[in-house]
Amino acid sequence: MAKQILRINMSALKATYEPIPEKWVRWGGRGLTSAIVFDEVDPTCHPLGPNNKLVIAPGWVSGSPAAPSSGRTSFGGKSPLTGGIKEANSGGLSSQKIAKLGLAAIILEGMPKDGKWYEIFINKDGVQFEDAADLVGKGMYEVDKLMWAKYSNKPAVIGIGPVGEMKLSNAGVSVNDPENEPGRYAGRGGLGAVMGARGVKVMVVDDTGGPGVELANKELFTEGRKKLTAAIQAHDLTKKDGGLWTFGTNVLMNIINEAGGLPTRGFSSGQFEGAAKISGEAVVENIEARGGVGTKHHACHPGCIMQCSSIYPHEDGTAFVSVIEYETSWSLGANCGIDDIEYIAQATWECNDIGLDTIEAGNAIAIAMEGGYLEFGDKAGALKTFDDIRQGTPMGRIMGQGTEATAKALGVFRVPTVKGQAMPAYEPRAIKGIGVTYATTPMGADHTSGYTIAPEIAGVGGKVDPLDNTDKAGLSLTFQAATAFIDSTGYCLFIAFPILDIAEGWAGMAESVAGVTGIEMTGDDVISIGKEILKMERLFNEAAGFTSADDRLPEFMREEELPPHNVKWTMSNEDLDQVYAWVHEEA
Amino acid sequence: MAKQILRINMSALKATYEPIPEKWVRWGGRGLTSAIVFDEVDPTCHPLGPNNKLVIAPGWVSGSPAAPSSGRTSFGGKSPLTGGIKEANSGGLSSQKIAKLGLAAIILEGMPKDGKWYEIFINKDGVQFEDAADLVGKGMYEVDKLMWAKYSNKPAVIGIGPVGEMKLSNAGVSVNDPENEPGRYAGRGGLGAVMGARGVKVMVVDDTGGPGVELANKELFTEGRKKLTAAIQAHDLTKKDGGLWTFGTNVLMNIINEAGGLPTRGFSSGQFEGAAKISGEAVVENIEARGGVGTKHHACHPGCIMQCSSIYPHEDGTAFVSVIEYETSWSLGANCGIDDIEYIAQATWECNDIGLDTIEAGNAIAIAMEGGYLEFGDKAGALKTFDDIRQGTPMGRIMGQGTEATAKALGVFRVPTVKGQAMPAYEPRAIKGIGVTYATTPMGADHTSGYTIAPEIAGVGGKVDPLDNTDKAGLSLTFQAATAFIDSTGYCLFIAFPILDIAEGWAGMAESVAGVTGIEMTGDDVISIGKEILKMERLFNEAAGFTSADDRLPEFMREEELPPHNVKWTMSNEDLDQVYAWVHEEA
Repeated sequence: MAKQILRINMSALKATYEPIPEKWVRWGGRGLTSAIVFDEVDPTCHPLGPNNKLVIAPGWVSGSPAAPSSGRTSFGGKSPLTGGIKEANSGGLSSQKIAKLGLAAIILEGMPKDGKWYEIFINKDGVQFEDAADLVGKGMYEVDKLMWAKYSNKPAVIGIGPVGEMKLSNAGVSVNDPENEPGRYAGRGGLGAVMGARGVKVMVVDDTGGPGVELANKELFTEGRKKLTAAIQAHDLTKKDGGLWTFGTNVLMNIINEAGGLPTRGFSSGQFEGAAKISGEAVVENIEARGGVGTKHHACHPGCIMQCSSIYPHEDGTAFVSVIEYETSWSLGANCGIDDIEYIAQATWECNDIGLDTIEAGNAIAIAMEGGYLEFGDKAGALKTFDDIRQGTPMGRIMGQGTEATAKALGVFRVPTVKGQAMPAYEPRAIKGIGVTYATTPMGADHTSGYTIAPEIAGVGGKVDPLDNTDKAGLSLTFQAATAFIDSTGYCLFIAFPILDIAEGWAGMAESVAGVTGIEMTGDDVISIGKEILKMERLFNEAAGFTSADDRLPEFMREEELPPHNVKWTMSNEDLDQVYAWVHEEA
Repeated sequence: MAKQILRINMSALKATYEPIPEKWVRWGGRGLTSAIVFDEVDPTCHPLGPNNKLVIAPGWVSGSPAAPSSGRTSFGGKSPLTGGIKEANSGGLSSQKIAKLGLAAIILEGMPKDGKWYEIFINKDGVQFEDAADLVGKGMYEVDKLMWAKYSNKPAVIGIGPVGEMKLSNAGVSVNDPENEPGRYAGRGGLGAVMGARGVKVMVVDDTGGPGVELANKELFTEGRKKLTAAIQAHDLTKKDGGLWTFGTNVLMNIINEAGGLPTRGFSSGQFEGAAKISGEAVVENIEARGGVGTKHHACHPGCIMQCSSIYPHEDGTAFVSVIEYETSWSLGANCGIDDIEYIAQATWECNDIGLDTIEAGNAIAIAMEGGYLEFGDKAGALKTFDDIRQGTPMGRIMGQGTEATAKALGVFRVPTVKGQAMPAYEPRAIKGIGVTYATTPMGADHTSGYTIAPEIAGVGGKVDPLDNTDKAGLSLTFQAATAFIDSTGYCLFIAFPILDIAEGWAGMAESVAGVTGIEMTGDDVISIGKEILKMERLFNEAAGFTSADDRLPEFMREEELPPHNVKWTMSNEDLDQVYAWVHEEA
């Protein structure tokens, strides 16, 4: 059975199943969300108005048997945070279940005329709309539990916390994990507010009895996934007992700190004296000491063989939070001058519960510290901001919007954002390539859009000097294009590490996609297909009003030297503008 | 003596007098502020950062003897509200005094290294910097009194209230009037925050003993000013006992309401049932009944012969507030569903004191009402927001930023702004030409940038149907160009009414400028000179990242019909884009 598009119109409270139009048939994941947003969303619409849409798409290979680490779900729309196109993807249960229901994408559009909140249940029999009044105001930990109690078969739960209900621009979309915890987030860019503006508190997806995913060429698929699996299992970063396997993404804390690229106390230094105390090593030490349900090897979705996630336990061994990513430990920790991993665990839990992107949330707290509302290092004050946000107090509504809004409210001009979105855990003055990605990606400052950290710090995919500007524009573009492709596959982006170093893995990725979809492609097509996606995204942003002036890092990084290397951001505008010049040059 | 530029560098606490560079010598007022901002301010700088500047310039004819109604001061910089170039001008004492000190402009730049607040005193002997710690937190009514007590000769006082100190993006710049009241505001676009970011609480200007303004051609000047004066005194709107003379700008309340173009309760209707109660007629009735210091004929600066200002008294005849403009009565009244002129007087006083633009402030309150924080018509709740702003509470910091920030905090998508700036008192769906001005002016939604209301409603400069789109693009451009010229003269914009209808007046305006400056020009040059100014402003905005997508009215006006005419905004993008097409077409 050919896949379908499920269109859920909240104005009419009506769901329709549509065949995939020819123009979308070759896309999956991010490629598909961006194509649909490009085709159906007016770039000048208000992100919270009736004409924006939330598009949800599993990747090309999601739900196919034994594709390794292929549980990413792409969420797309016009971002309330950046005003541009947004794709944010998440692990958790949703990708495979949506795919197995035979759906290429779900398009959530319109607004309920009655102003009510809705719970949407999707299974093989169709779509049910239920009044969600009893869920309003609840955090995602409780919502997930309620949904599994109400519905059988351990369904995927896609939901928003109070932040999304308030339509604040740092609202993420939560997806539950195999333990039914809500910590998997399509976090960046405020898509939770786009979901909230549709009047949808939660979507529950049960794939039981669904048609599953057909393979166009089983032999090719099997060959491809085996190559990819072998590469993952061979690479130092992703193999069993490798860095990600052992310490999770937070293996980076000490490494980036050592490189002088760890943004500290509101991007005022590149090194944090407390880095070790909030590193992956510290997390694992506590997990091992405390035991109980804590584990350092946890899969955020079924079939993940990298298992970079973990479950952090309370001292008594009961579950605390999953997962303390590197970005999270940095944003809530180092960037706020806080070196207490217990605080970070608690703050992460709060973000997961109320529905905040942790990167943006930590940056907003750091701005509140820079602006004098809090002091750097003030854990109690920072925790109180989560209460404020949960309750929707005015300060909570400021901080729930993220970094720029907090800066504007407090008159702060050192604002580490691009296109309105806060920077992640890599200082662009000390690691130039990631700065090019921050500046130029259609997504706003985002490391996952073109992770040049691989060659600049980790020695993956080559080795280049992080402090050198040379060739970083081209490097970033290559990574951005490869990423747009990987984000379309349903595979976790971390397959990039092995496939950058192991050519068979790269080829295997493309072959597995071709095997599932029947679309002819090889590893040689990855970059060009990725660039097609980037082009749609850039053209959407241009129509929304973006120009080269939006492809710049903030002024203060061009003016202030960053210790310990005492470096400014010195990339020329010409180099930055070169990254996407091809969009209008190529026919 | 040739005029000079006074450059005040707050980083060095140093003032320098510079000859006017050739490139600026032909400009005055808005033309000069825009030229300086265009040349000296990086369009990508942060508006509150070290590289933005506040430029202050009297007009070409300001300070020349007996030029009628020529006391406007232009303030320019990069706007914290719009992110683009901004010129806002004000009446009051500053224009003539700065001019008579022989200054073409004051450039305020840098930031104090010590983070302190400063009071700046300027007279013929130079510039003094004083610690302003004792003024911090004070409202402008008190500051003005303190400055006149401290300095002799009844100086001009240019200052910011607490809103500017907090660097919130709806902070205006106050100028005192002849009674030393602070109600003259360069209100729009947040330039008070730009002044605050320079660390300057107040600038005091005493022109005693200054060189005065030289006339290049006294005969030509005299001839011109006489023609202009005659036109002002002959025109129905501006002559003695004419509409403006009698009722002030608030003569418009009933007229615009009658036309169905009075934005009511958050731009949800074009008529307000309580319009008469907050009209100029109602204001004058109270002034006449109460007596005391109240007067319906008040000049906001020496030498004004139109005297549209008034002083509104308390019931006991003591001074309450000057002035309740039409825009103010509308924004704080009709747009919030409030029909109580006493409330409006109090709210206006609050805005004047703490340093808010009233148009933006009233729009922000209306959004708070739409967003459920207040109810429409809630006067007590609205007044409390001014206390919040004054005290810098989180809600005050939200609302002190204006309309868009309030909308984002409350999740409201019906936001009547263009380029981040709130619309004034004319519904663009019911009066199409003003909508073109809102959409396309470099200033963000601003009626004073191209007041097509003249022919669309008042029958001045011709008569066109407000509901018809035809030829409105060209009409708006002509008005925008003429306005840019008038804003450069130092003359009040209200001379536009007589000179649009009386050709001698138009010619006289240009001749008076030529007579003062020695720049050869006639009435035939007005539009082309105005377009030169507009071009600088548009190019600045383009470099700051503005595109045609920023020249649009908000989505909800394209979707919702406005009663009573039941009309949507239907101007095509092509027509809107035509308004400024010449910027890149003309050589």
